[in-house]
Amino acid sequence: MSTKQKRYFLSEDEIPTQWYNIQADMVNKPLPPIHPATKQPLNAEDLYPIFAKELCHQELDKENAWIDIPEEVLEKYKYYRSTPLVRAYGLEEAIGTKCHIYFKNESVSPVGSHKLNSALAQAYYCKQEGITNVTTETGAGQWGCALSYAAKVFGLDAAVYQVKISYEQKPYRRSIMQTYGAQVTPSPSMSTRAGKDVLTKDPNNQGSLGTAISEAVELAMTTPNCKYVLGSVLNHVALHQTIIGLEAEKQMEKAGEYPDVVIGCFGGGSNFGGISFPFMRHKIKDGKNTRFVAAEPASCPKLTRGVFQYDFGDLSGLTPLLPMYTLGHNFMPANIHAGGLRYHGAGMIISQLLKDGLMEAVDIKQSETFKAGLLFSKAEGIIPAPESCHAIAAAINEAKKYDEAGEEKVILFNLSGHGLIDMTAYDQYLAGSLQDYEVTDEDVAKNIAELEKVI
Amino acid sequence: MSTKQKRYFLSEDEIPTQWYNIQADMVNKPLPPIHPATKQPLNAEDLYPIFAKELCHQELDKENAWIDIPEEVLEKYKYYRSTPLVRAYGLEEAIGTKCHIYFKNESVSPVGSHKLNSALAQAYYCKQEGITNVTTETGAGQWGCALSYAAKVFGLDAAVYQVKISYEQKPYRRSIMQTYGAQVTPSPSMSTRAGKDVLTKDPNNQGSLGTAISEAVELAMTTPNCKYVLGSVLNHVALHQTIIGLEAEKQMEKAGEYPDVVIGCFGGGSNFGGISFPFMRHKIKDGKNTRFVAAEPASCPKLTRGVFQYDFGDLSGLTPLLPMYTLGHNFMPANIHAGGLRYHGAGMIISQLLKDGLMEAVDIKQSETFKAGLLFSKAEGIIPAPESCHAIAAAINEAKKYDEAGEEKVILFNLSGHGLIDMTAYDQYLAGSLQDYEVTDEDVAKNIAELEKVI
Repeated sequence: MSTKQKRYFLSEDEIPTQWYNIQADMVNKPLPPIHPATKQPLNAEDLYPIFAKELCHQELDKENAWIDIPEEVLEKYKYYRSTPLVRAYGLEEAIGTKCHIYFKNESVSPVGSHKLNSALAQAYYCKQEGITNVTTETGAGQWGCALSYAAKVFGLDAAVYQVKISYEQKPYRRSIMQTYGAQVTPSPSMSTRAGKDVLTKDPNNQGSLGTAISEAVELAMTTPNCKYVLGSVLNHVALHQTIIGLEAEKQMEKAGEYPDVVIGCFGGGSNFGGISFPFMRHKIKDGKNTRFVAAEPASCPKLTRGVFQYDFGDLSGLTPLLPMYTLGHNFMPANIHAGGLRYHGAGMIISQLLKDGLMEAVDIKQSETFKAGLLFSKAEGIIPAPESCHAIAAAINEAKKYDEAGEEKVILFNLSGHGLIDMTAYDQYLAGSLQDYEVTDEDVAKNIAELEKVI
Repeated sequence: MSTKQKRYFLSEDEIPTQWYNIQADMVNKPLPPIHPATKQPLNAEDLYPIFAKELCHQELDKENAWIDIPEEVLEKYKYYRSTPLVRAYGLEEAIGTKCHIYFKNESVSPVGSHKLNSALAQAYYCKQEGITNVTTETGAGQWGCALSYAAKVFGLDAAVYQVKISYEQKPYRRSIMQTYGAQVTPSPSMSTRAGKDVLTKDPNNQGSLGTAISEAVELAMTTPNCKYVLGSVLNHVALHQTIIGLEAEKQMEKAGEYPDVVIGCFGGGSNFGGISFPFMRHKIKDGKNTRFVAAEPASCPKLTRGVFQYDFGDLSGLTPLLPMYTLGHNFMPANIHAGGLRYHGAGMIISQLLKDGLMEAVDIKQSETFKAGLLFSKAEGIIPAPESCHAIAAAINEAKKYDEAGEEKVILFNLSGHGLIDMTAYDQYLAGSLQDYEVTDEDVAKNIAELEKVI
């Protein structure tokens, strides 16, 4: 028994020193973001008012496949990286599969999720440019916690707009942000025009990532020496998250295997892109036949039921227009516990990859995700975040399909975070009171119809 | 910068395969536990009604310095071990010390604390003996979570009595136990005679570890095929926790250093013993001049203000009489957030070591521990459990003392767990509403006076 290795690490000098920019290798490049008024493609300079300059250039970089990780960021990565690649013997046994299941355990980061990988990078670039304040939005709070800590590390002040339903459902994440020294405001709030507009129409509005983004962007644009930072969706965020897949690639090599399927849960795409892109480069460049599966909530199904079209990244239309699979920026997702997946659109790179058939998407109901999460908890000991439960459910489904077909495949998924601060969700599941939310075709059609006014 | 190594791991084949039993090497052995009625020393067989047999023998083993870790336990250790040994560069910089500070990070276990090391061992031995049910008490819930998961791993049913104040202050830990499939009851409860007695006298009693132990022991003794398991205090629990110090010893060797001071927070002694005993063997056997410092709450100061005497391990007097530093088994600790440290006595081994001058103890006020925890959070990213904050505060104090003396020493402490499920405590600290509790000399004297009736 004890000869079977369970976890694979990298030594500190094996940790990758560059991020992988898949845009450089894509045959069909992502369409450019465009200016809502002029309808002209944006260049990096157009984004300077919102983001740190270096991030603007990373966002649009279609030339350089490899971007050096700054030494100061690498130094802070070493506080928790490499994260373990784990062979899920317990899960395999629990579902009786012949497939080999691995997961990359990003839950061991001090803030409990993968989000820190990009937060540290973004805070560092802001600091380098002399910026003193950063602002952002957060759903379940994982990104907000990561940004709050990263801001502290590099001596910045952080202001976080947290989606109100999550602020109330998960008060511990607010406390964590405050412990790191951040200022936290539930969104929609009365502190911005965007927030006031929403609350005026609907005083009990529970918030969404779209609204919170509007508030944070507005604050950044009206505050001196303040930049906005984003936890997902954008290309540069997925870029920073490729540290996950790059580590996993080296670790899978130590395990003597290569994944047939790579799976991530899907909100805006940074976690999925992070685990997938490094492996996808071998599909694009070396003809590897790996499958890539994004697992999204059935209540927010932009990849499986949305349309590929230009849309705003936020509710108020403050952002550039982005080419994305979207349910329409007015789409208000149901109050599922996986707050980090409650976003109407998909990142530009992912959208293009899905359009080109390089990846697949599945949608999963909330109750099925918690069933998978509970099984995983008992089998592997780690209680997964509601977001990560989507990836686990998808991995279980894939294993079962291969078992039925008599194929023994290697499955890799990203465990994006732990659920220790999401226990009210597990309480509800155990009590049988967890609700599944349906999205009707009419809902989808109505929101998408409004998109025609956009462009 | 990036040449400074931050974290040290062991490969899976470097993980120790034996626990260290310090009793074998102690010059003055711990006094034996004695039967409350006969006043005769107990032998292993006397403990069979309460504990699994193998654990009874480990408890009293004064011969064998090394105990093999069963292969099935080692296999499960590999789910999260080795835990990292971390050089606390961030903390060193924050306090401006010239000392080298290391911490062993037990917070990365799936349940968030070191408690799993003994829970897996105890559940395994119970299973081996054909036991089907285990019962225990828990304070903050860390031990209860660990036991709940360990019971699930080895196919046992677990019933946990959780100290009521913690059950209410930290509902997430209850949820975690239930997610792993355990039955959780707030203590004092009406389900046992011991609980009823307390509630009859004091309907609003908030509970204590002493009461919860009485309830769990009573349940074990009145339920067929059910054994009691304990998360601290006893010798066999500290034995299992030596995996912490044994790993740390190998990891410090990789770091090229040896600790001058070893620090742990102190409740019953398993965390402190776990990090200390392996290093203490070199003090006993090889004359190493290492200091060992136990950090206990000022509100529950058994090591610094208690007496060394035989006392019961629980409130109701169901346990054998144990030779310990104690505040008296009737001592009711204040409702500090470090629920795991709210225990009236110290383990038998620790008590003897303190009596013999092989270790020291300090007591620390609650507000000072959270101040240290907040500093550590911002410096190292990890939000520590309230219990672990005691060790951090002691480590900071030691570093400052050495700095003042112009000495550059190597300090090692155990980070027993993370505080992500204790955020209400941090909320209170940040809001300035955290209370410090004083124990008067009269209180101590009164409780200790009652001890004279015991033996």
